[in-house]
Amino acid sequence: MVLGELKKEIKGLLSQKRWEHTLRVVSASFELISCLQIEIEANKVETAALLHDCAKDLPLGEQLKKAGYFGIVLTSSDLLCPKTLHGRVGAGIVQHEFGIVDADIIQAVALHTTGGPRMSPLAKIIFVADYIEPGRSFPGVEKLRLLAKKELNGAVLACMEQTLLYLLQRGDFIHPRMIAARNYILAAEDYTLV
Amino acid sequence: MVLGELKKEIKGLLSQKRWEHTLRVVSASFELISCLQIEIEANKVETAALLHDCAKDLPLGEQLKKAGYFGIVLTSSDLLCPKTLHGRVGAGIVQHEFGIVDADIIQAVALHTTGGPRMSPLAKIIFVADYIEPGRSFPGVEKLRLLAKKELNGAVLACMEQTLLYLLQRGDFIHPRMIAARNYILAAEDYTLV
Repeated sequence: MVLGELKKEIKGLLSQKRWEHTLRVVSASFELISCLQIEIEANKVETAALLHDCAKDLPLGEQLKKAGYFGIVLTSSDLLCPKTLHGRVGAGIVQHEFGIVDADIIQAVALHTTGGPRMSPLAKIIFVADYIEPGRSFPGVEKLRLLAKKELNGAVLACMEQTLLYLLQRGDFIHPRMIAARNYILAAEDYTLV
Repeated sequence: MVLGELKKEIKGLLSQKRWEHTLRVVSASFELISCLQIEIEANKVETAALLHDCAKDLPLGEQLKKAGYFGIVLTSSDLLCPKTLHGRVGAGIVQHEFGIVDADIIQAVALHTTGGPRMSPLAKIIFVADYIEPGRSFPGVEKLRLLAKKELNGAVLACMEQTLLYLLQRGDFIHPRMIAARNYILAAEDYTLV
């Protein structure tokens, strides 16, 4: 599917508000890879960014049905954190409905809500871009934007920290995959294995 | 093994400092169950409290060797958080070296470092008593001590929050089992399933 067609299809799946957010994630992703001088094929970046929220506007019941159809196994953590589910369900849609086979794109969509161990540079870019795109406004976002232009792993960790502090403060569930993702990056930085 | 003999054996495994801490955990546990009016056999409480740190003074290499011998499977999270390991290795010692078969005691020792899903009241008591025993001094400990006398689940959650904030602040690894434990209690409180 060429990008023009893909855009049209995705726009049809999303609310106007979500579509505008999606376009901002596309731009933010390109800005990040340019500042960080990371080489990723432009087509992959745009496809992943366009698709990242493709499941988000589906009602939860629909998401669960699709998860079942795609053979996605849900853990108790997924059930406690249903807002994270549209990442993995979205990745199923990317694979099975859009016929995309690129593993980096599929992973970037799957992990944009929680992160995960062994994130590719593309997955990290989409994760951060989604967090700091210009439509976001929360205390500290400007600091994150500056950091993101300099240090990708540091930015992923800082976004996760912000999320974790927010969830702790609210007494809300935390998805253990975010913890595993954070540990993985901390360990990789320690051992310079990235 | 009667309690007198058990005490002697455990004292032999621990440094003087750790033994004194252990005795304070015994008293703190009894104080908590009395304040909270939780009925647990005194013998179980004392045994679990006495044994909770039985593996802590073993060098890490010894702990790993015992884990292998006991058939304890280590995840990458255990390797990233080796300070939590003495809980599960201790539970192995309780079971295989002290010949204790009581599942609540074994669980309380296993989970006193991270917590875990489906903690028994005894496991929660030991977890909290270890955190707030009179030898502990950190900002907020007095507030935790007051809470612990009123609300066991609330105290477990507050101790976990304190640990998680500390680890986030230090950029240190978090064991996902603590997250699973926290989610379990939050969910149980929501659905009043405890």
